Amino acid sequence: MLIDGIQATQLSATDRGLNYGDGLFETMRVFRGKVCLLERHLARLRESCRRIALPYPGDHVLAGDIARLQPAADAAGVLRLLLTRGDSGRGYAPPPGATARRIVALYPLPHLPDELTVGICATRLGRSPALGGLKHLGRLEQVLAAGEAAAAGWDEGLMLDERDRVVEGTRHNLFFLRDGQWYTPPLDACGVAGVMRGMVTEALAMLGLGGGEAALRYDELHEVEELLLCNAVVGVRRVSELAGRRLGGGRIVADLAAPLAAAGAAWLA
Amino acid sequence: MLIDGIQATQLSATDRGLNYGDGLFETMRVFRGKVCLLERHLARLRESCRRIALPYPGDHVLAGDIARLQPAADAAGVLRLLLTRGDSGRGYAPPPGATARRIVALYPLPHLPDELTVGICATRLGRSPALGGLKHLGRLEQVLAAGEAAAAGWDEGLMLDERDRVVEGTRHNLFFLRDGQWYTPPLDACGVAGVMRGMVTEALAMLGLGGGEAALRYDELHEVEELLLCNAVVGVRRVSELAGRRLGGGRIVADLAAPLAAAGAAWLA
Repeated sequence: MLIDGIQATQLSATDRGLNYGDGLFETMRVFRGKVCLLERHLARLRESCRRIALPYPGDHVLAGDIARLQPAADAAGVLRLLLTRGDSGRGYAPPPGATARRIVALYPLPHLPDELTVGICATRLGRSPALGGLKHLGRLEQVLAAGEAAAAGWDEGLMLDERDRVVEGTRHNLFFLRDGQWYTPPLDACGVAGVMRGMVTEALAMLGLGGGEAALRYDELHEVEELLLCNAVVGVRRVSELAGRRLGGGRIVADLAAPLAAAGAAWLA
Repeated sequence: MLIDGIQATQLSATDRGLNYGDGLFETMRVFRGKVCLLERHLARLRESCRRIALPYPGDHVLAGDIARLQPAADAAGVLRLLLTRGDSGRGYAPPPGATARRIVALYPLPHLPDELTVGICATRLGRSPALGGLKHLGRLEQVLAAGEAAAAGWDEGLMLDERDRVVEGTRHNLFFLRDGQWYTPPLDACGVAGVMRGMVTEALAMLGLGGGEAALRYDELHEVEELLLCNAVVGVRRVSELAGRRLGGGRIVADLAAPLAAAGAAWLA
């Protein structure tokens, strides 16, 4: 792990990421020693920094941190890049002149089943227009929902918003098949606008199967023919069971592999 | 600063409070070397721990941490008590058997004006039934709103929810006077159910002036005759200016001092 480019395992307990959730993160796939989709992740991080008025450290600095971690040439894993607004005393207002603290760490690749069983979490996603789409550090809703999924033995849990709309999984974005087209829920007020979600949207459009964004109400879930989950660590996975109902399909996963690999998801080639 | 009872200034960068906002905090007033309203703060913390399934360390352990910090006999300041779910690898689900990490720190008393100028923040509070009322670590909305207030030169900023209801300030709860009664907005889906808010509610009831909880729409703000802000550090403060409009009143601040002091807010005596 590197903190501001220096090997370290500890950081100041006055860090604003810890005390106020004042920061952002990216989770990236490492494949054969290379970080996949780095440009897309950094582009999202730069845009997210702009939204919370956190100075973006620059592509060069972040790529330098990652190079210094030196994953082995054959390494597979996950790289987590976290930015906080550094240290401050008490008080929510960002201190004038604050810059980003960078925390970069490698983790082993998690177990990745090909098909996922999925249930519906009781924990709802809050609707926060200020934070919608951001991968910010305040993940307590996901923590509670992931705890439900683990207790129930599901591979993943779907989360609804307060308006009974299905938004995403605790750690995946969601695509659903309806009337022959694939849609993904809008994320204007909650959810994380994932890098892989953007790539899958583009790939579906190329295949002539993409319907773009569409809301999915909880009471419409039974009409869904197939479900996909995606993120930048796994790529795309089909849902084999939704709240006890078996779901078919899944050919789309193979159909998406080539365009996703061509767009940079090298591990899918 | 004490971390798990031991003097320290750093903590593990794998802490779940940092990485996922997986934790809670309390902010308490230190007056003449004593932590005020400790029982109320610990009672709220215990209940909040229950809601997020974080094992509560116990009153005795937390009081022991505070005693070990040994504020000087004449000290005035702020004590911040933070609990996280400790360390883990990647993954939102709480690790089985996780216990709370305790971070206790003393800070100087902030500058406390008697009257506050207040504006309306553009940053909205998200509505999250799972987290409503909790003082959890994900405070990024408050960070953004407090940045707005600082830039505008207001002492405090009021935050609306997505339904155009006034909920609270970035660091204060809110009471408003309408038709001779004082009300405070409900916090079922957002906001922090502050210790001082509970005490002011009780004190207003004793004075025969308390109307309990009532929603306050943004377009009703111009009807409000007086506004109070409160928290466990300052007690109660009147608002002298709301979005450019001068507000009168404030006698209620003096009327509340005796019952609040009797209930444990010793610095108001």
